[in-house]
Amino acid sequence: MKYKFANHVSNMNISAIREIFKVLGKPGMISFAGGAPAPEVLPLDIINKLNSIIIEKYGTTVLQYNVTEGFVPLRQALSNYLNTTRGFDLSANEVFVSTGAQNAIDAVSRLFIDVGDKIIVESPTFLASIKTFRVSSPAILSVSVDEEGINLIELETLLKQNKIKFLYTIPNFQNPSGYTMSLDRRQQLVELAKRYELLIIEDDPYYELRYYGSNLPTLRSLLPDQVIYIGSLSKIFAPGMRLGYYIAPDQIAEKITSVRQGIDVHANIYAQALASEYISGGYLETQLQLIRNLYRVRLELMLSELNQKLSNKEIKISQPLGGMFVWLSNISQDTVELYNQAIKQNVAFVPGKYFFVNESPNNHSLRLNFTNVNEENIIKGIDILSKILK
Amino acid sequence: MKYKFANHVSNMNISAIREIFKVLGKPGMISFAGGAPAPEVLPLDIINKLNSIIIEKYGTTVLQYNVTEGFVPLRQALSNYLNTTRGFDLSANEVFVSTGAQNAIDAVSRLFIDVGDKIIVESPTFLASIKTFRVSSPAILSVSVDEEGINLIELETLLKQNKIKFLYTIPNFQNPSGYTMSLDRRQQLVELAKRYELLIIEDDPYYELRYYGSNLPTLRSLLPDQVIYIGSLSKIFAPGMRLGYYIAPDQIAEKITSVRQGIDVHANIYAQALASEYISGGYLETQLQLIRNLYRVRLELMLSELNQKLSNKEIKISQPLGGMFVWLSNISQDTVELYNQAIKQNVAFVPGKYFFVNESPNNHSLRLNFTNVNEENIIKGIDILSKILK
Repeated sequence: MKYKFANHVSNMNISAIREIFKVLGKPGMISFAGGAPAPEVLPLDIINKLNSIIIEKYGTTVLQYNVTEGFVPLRQALSNYLNTTRGFDLSANEVFVSTGAQNAIDAVSRLFIDVGDKIIVESPTFLASIKTFRVSSPAILSVSVDEEGINLIELETLLKQNKIKFLYTIPNFQNPSGYTMSLDRRQQLVELAKRYELLIIEDDPYYELRYYGSNLPTLRSLLPDQVIYIGSLSKIFAPGMRLGYYIAPDQIAEKITSVRQGIDVHANIYAQALASEYISGGYLETQLQLIRNLYRVRLELMLSELNQKLSNKEIKISQPLGGMFVWLSNISQDTVELYNQAIKQNVAFVPGKYFFVNESPNNHSLRLNFTNVNEENIIKGIDILSKILK
Repeated sequence: MKYKFANHVSNMNISAIREIFKVLGKPGMISFAGGAPAPEVLPLDIINKLNSIIIEKYGTTVLQYNVTEGFVPLRQALSNYLNTTRGFDLSANEVFVSTGAQNAIDAVSRLFIDVGDKIIVESPTFLASIKTFRVSSPAILSVSVDEEGINLIELETLLKQNKIKFLYTIPNFQNPSGYTMSLDRRQQLVELAKRYELLIIEDDPYYELRYYGSNLPTLRSLLPDQVIYIGSLSKIFAPGMRLGYYIAPDQIAEKITSVRQGIDVHANIYAQALASEYISGGYLETQLQLIRNLYRVRLELMLSELNQKLSNKEIKISQPLGGMFVWLSNISQDTVELYNQAIKQNVAFVPGKYFFVNESPNNHSLRLNFTNVNEENIIKGIDILSKILK
């Protein structure tokens, strides 16, 4: 039988990026391709201890259905935590728990996008978010990013010429570029957003992963009525638990809940109970020290190796102050071809083209993850890579 | 600022059903409204034991990202289990784990439905599935069900006149009616499906909850190329864990995976590890005895109370052989008004209208859950209900 799929399915790029991830399991492979936490800082021992605490404290509630908005103790723990770290002023019922940040991005897409509606993303941007948006079939426009963040001249040109449903941005340690939006750029973006009544999706999974300097104000704190703020517990707790959260203007939050009743019903309650104890019991704070210390060392090492070994080349190396990725651009070779050479020598990365939405993607950039590769392999892998980079 | 939501949002019925569920928390309320397992048969002690087993066995893998298709040990456990119980002949890589059955229903909707595409559901049908479908904006047609299952004459009329993307059916102990599709009806449905190239979504969350007689062949076993089979661990493990599974023709399964990479990435890995031990370690089998014994007693009690107390009324009482619900129809009163009377006396149920998709829904039916109400309250609640039923 011939199956009659929806129209957007013909645009689904099933094989390309999956082929890349398939080779990563190969023994001996040094993979800079992923975006996963280092297993050394996954809180297995803490969870082993928290299991009996939550079972004792909450009984069968942790196994039962619950409300879509989230498990109340986690909403309490998150609101306290976000008020302290982000300077928010939230009550527990203004924070919502999602099945990973992706679930929140998806629910927002479905709440706003009719087929062909226009949205704007950064160029480059997080490839999984592109995938999420495409399921709702919008026209995706893009605006370039530089070391200071999103290009506001390009953005205003698009806003003048188009009706835009929302802008999707990752202001801190952007995936894949590692760039962070400057305070000045944030303030100007907010002014533009007010002038053009632009709704902003602020995706902020790396807020905690700052290794130098101080955090900048979130877009949400500058313009709460027009920003949907999305956070993740994947980098600071455990990605396998699929927990994220979001904050949105009341009128939007209520409708996200309604959409999610048809999508995920609610996030895993057992995991939410664990996360609530992890945050309110002070484990997160201790764990964040370990995480930051480990990742800072790896970032420093990767940058010093890259700066040293690529010093006489034209290649541009991003200099992130946090996050999980370093971005190489202005590479003369086609990075898909480069990838094929690299994996023969057991080194993997993600070619830049997957992070662009436009028709002629940038084939002269690539993304390197530094959080999930140990020091020895960073030295070895960058050495191999630098030799095949012209 | 005025937010510009997608078109389908104006059709979202946010308040109605939520208002009903809000009153359920009221102290002293006897609620026949839910669809949750009894807390007595949620495997809290077993999970308390399995926690250390999976941490020992799998280490940080249970906290890390994994593939969308599912955690391999759970896919193995499920394929063995389904082969034994359903007579399937599956390898582990033909079973896929979803974030609850709802996530699978949603992914299938998004894979097949373009705005305005026609799908067919049973009338009445599961209200949360209606909600899921509506997010993808199909035209939803419906076909009545009786004690033998879906009405095939109505179905064929629709198939003759319309292009249909899929039929959604719950053949066993249907939610809300409790009806089970007969073998004869299953075989005829399969013949129709072949003739009209109809894709079938077989939602089978209650397969294990049979209290009398033997299970009938699944539609999937009769027509594997045209059936997407969706199962749930919510009734036999724990709904708070948000785990379901699906089996589909290869070409479809591959595309569901791709859609899910933009929706949920993958189901909670920690929960999948627990479920794999729960099934392969033989705990499920023991637990199912407890579950069936408890629910059978409650079903028998509810039916005998209803049959006795409503004996001289015209009301039709469904006589399910399994599942979680009894359906009352042919009620002379409007059941929304009846609901308002009932909650004043601390008894709740779901008025029938929420289970219909057509414009003039049936207001003369209601759904009663029997799994999550203890014996004393079943007697008390049915007594109160029978007095306000004319």
